[in-house]
Amino acid sequence: MAKFERHIFICTNQRPEGHPRGCCNQSGDGDLQRQFKMKLAQHGIAGSTVRANKAGCLDQCELGPTVVVYPDAVWYGHVTAADIDEIIESHIIGGRPVERLIIPDSLLNNTQQKVSADK
Amino acid sequence: MAKFERHIFICTNQRPEGHPRGCCNQSGDGDLQRQFKMKLAQHGIAGSTVRANKAGCLDQCELGPTVVVYPDAVWYGHVTAADIDEIIESHIIGGRPVERLIIPDSLLNNTQQKVSADK
Repeated sequence: MAKFERHIFICTNQRPEGHPRGCCNQSGDGDLQRQFKMKLAQHGIAGSTVRANKAGCLDQCELGPTVVVYPDAVWYGHVTAADIDEIIESHIIGGRPVERLIIPDSLLNNTQQKVSADK
Repeated sequence: MAKFERHIFICTNQRPEGHPRGCCNQSGDGDLQRQFKMKLAQHGIAGSTVRANKAGCLDQCELGPTVVVYPDAVWYGHVTAADIDEIIESHIIGGRPVERLIIPDSLLNNTQQKVSADK
């Protein structure tokens, strides 16, 4: 077949409550990734074209829950389930990234509280 | 700062022994990802430039252990710890993907035994 046209990585790393870096998956159940997967299916997007993939720590925890879409290398921060339809419809289908959720390059890998606990 | 220059996703999904699709992480300890991370550090590559990231199932299990490097979208199959230095030195540092390990597009998302058990 071919590479994925878009490969969506959703951070499912869990940190203890109150961790200084925050946590992308406070409940620990990876629900955001499951919802992305379900919504892609609802939009009729086959798994061999676009994949919503679980990821370990993406290392932008303070901005989480974080999602990165490749090969575009578009980073989204503070993503909730309510944002998924817009990301799929505007970005994945329409090719227009959702500006209001984008983490600017100036904030990527630029956090002050990094600790060595990332998994 | 900036986006990662290269973001390496290493499948750490574990399936039961004897699963028809095989498994990228038979021991379940995610050792390949840890070794990538350690080797990047040994090569003096900072975490904010290149990241060796745990990934959930990348869905190319029959070709595993699988690794995908973005934004290049270069897929590697049957990767072992013995291949890590070459991937880092040739591809990550030198910009020349390791041809002998590349999964051709014709094999990606083209397996016969896909089952719904991917996580």
